[in-house]
Amino acid sequence: MSIPLMEPAFEYCFELRCRVEDPVQLGGTTPGEGLHFARVSGGTFDGPRLRGTILDGGGDWWNGRGLAVELDARYVIEAEVETGTAGVEVVNRGVWRTDDATWARIVAGEAVDERELYYRTAFRFRTDHPELRWLTEYQFVGYARAEPGYVIIRVFRLA
Amino acid sequence: MSIPLMEPAFEYCFELRCRVEDPVQLGGTTPGEGLHFARVSGGTFDGPRLRGTILDGGGDWWNGRGLAVELDARYVIEAEVETGTAGVEVVNRGVWRTDDATWARIVAGEAVDERELYYRTAFRFRTDHPELRWLTEYQFVGYARAEPGYVIIRVFRLA
Amino acid sequence: MSIPLMEPAFEYCFELRCRVEDPVQLGGTTPGEGLHFARVSGGTFDGPRLRGTILDGGGDWWNGRGLAVELDARYVIEAEVETGTAGVEVVNRGVWRTDDATWARIVAGEAVDERELYYRTAFRFRTDHPELRWLTEYQFVGYARAEPGYVIIRVFRLA
Amino acid sequence: MSIPLMEPAFEYCFELRCRVEDPVQLGGTTPGEGLHFARVSGGTFDGPRLRGTILDGGGDWWNGRGLAVELDARYVIEAEVETGTAGVEVVNRGVWRTDDATWARIVAGEAVDERELYYRTAFRFRTDHPELRWLTEYQFVGYARAEPGYVIIRVFRLA
Repeated sequence: MSIPLMEPAFEYCFELRCRVEDPVQLGGTTPGEGLHFARVSGGTFDGPRLRGTILDGGGDWWNGRGLAVELDARYVIEAEVETGTAGVEVVNRGVWRTDDATWARIVAGEAVDERELYYRTAFRFRTDHPELRWLTEYQFVGYARAEPGYVIIRVFRLA
Repeated sequence: MSIPLMEPAFEYCFELRCRVEDPVQLGGTTPGEGLHFARVSGGTFDGPRLRGTILDGGGDWWNGRGLAVELDARYVIEAEVETGTAGVEVVNRGVWRTDDATWARIVAGEAVDERELYYRTAFRFRTDHPELRWLTEYQFVGYARAEPGYVIIRVFRLA
Repeated sequence: MSIPLMEPAFEYCFELRCRVEDPVQLGGTTPGEGLHFARVSGGTFDGPRLRGTILDGGGDWWNGRGLAVELDARYVIEAEVETGTAGVEVVNRGVWRTDDATWARIVAGEAVDERELYYRTAFRFRTDHPELRWLTEYQFVGYARAEPGYVIIRVFRLA
Repeated sequence: MSIPLMEPAFEYCFELRCRVEDPVQLGGTTPGEGLHFARVSGGTFDGPRLRGTILDGGGDWWNGRGLAVELDARYVIEAEVETGTAGVEVVNRGVWRTDDATWARIVAGEAVDERELYYRTAFRFRTDHPELRWLTEYQFVGYARAEPGYVIIRVFRLA
């Protein structure tokens, strides 16, 4: 029997432009190692499927090990719906890693694009708004890049 | 054989005075029902064992069902240590429930004390600072009360 | 103004007798250090407030650091209710620590009581069964002790 | 300025063949609605990048809402490495949804393929074994299908 298998495919939905504050060290004894908290303090998002604003509050509890970082972000966005806006919980987990040269450029305040950084995530959204139900019914992944003070993540849904 | 069993006992450690912003509704369709996010935006803590400040960021992802609420708060505090301050992750989960009369008083902006509200929690702290290691080696519980714009929680460690 | 504050108080509810299999090491490079998984494979519970059985499945994802361990257990119990039994999710987090002498006794297969071990936890239960609703409306803590192949935890609710 | 953006791309790594026991209902009052637990009781995995066995223990805490299900699975696999095997924690979250006709076929014990079911997930692996470090440094997604008593998930890493 041959089982029909799919080629994974994506659809681009929107891009989050997330303002992230300087991290506070919570674990580890060396800067960048162990648990940190970086507050998410605002931003916007826009794209073919959704647009709105990112609220101040929540943040990214990230855990560093050398030049690799495990992300665990949780924050809130307000999406535009027909009658106004609706709150949506965002949980975004993933990994981020780089090399010494690219890291030096980030520290120097340069923007780093998606190809220069392995910064890939998976999203879970939570909302009960009927217009936004699709956010809870697909698996989403993110491709991220860095600009000073911001993380910019393109959000795709898996076909 | 008789197994020696303990009578649970507590030691009071410190009191958190936590500023909490108005919640954003994320789930449910009725106000107060389902998932909400309330940002923790600052505060202080003080007591026989620890003192410092509560940072802006993180928050309480609470879930309401009638007059009972399940809490799931995660935020960051900076504790005073010998050489300055050290960041500590706070995870505080628990339950909160009341009756119609007490709820009406809270909405009217009155303070409500620990006996009038069942607001009990369990804490987990995370830090690698050697002076604060005890925070990771005990189980802690909280007794909370409400003031307009604030939650005040007394933190006890189990003996 | 003097704020009426409570003396923390407990009520004993039931005791879990939990069979725990040998742990599998998932993290760390030294035995006992880092993340481990210990399957919960059965058991019973009994007491003034609740009785029933512990199901096979779930387990304890524990993280060791020297002679201190951070617990994160999640499993399922079936509680007796008027019409039969009802499933309840158990999430039990806490800490466990000992000294070299007591540890040697545990390894040698001796039982260790609640005073000899600091093994304290906080519970969250989840169920929608109306007779068990109280399990979701109180904060619970646990006092545990060890027997070969078993953890025995007395469960108290906070007044 | 034009920012170089990537087309999401995948690499197939291995396929998990996971034995899953009948679920226990933990929440909700209607079968299939609310929180359930389905124990993972064994299995195997194989593919170009990794092979080994799935251990008994852990499970899937899934939450149903009509014909859509939110998954939250956590279990342990043992992967073959040069010197034997190494334990790896698997956390697999995602969504699963179907229609009435496909659901009837599943209930009747038929296999359902990846195109007939939207069953997509995101993985996080945890291990400290040096040969398996790559599992912690990529974002992985899963495409799943159902056979009686089994879930079969193909695991891809994002480029």
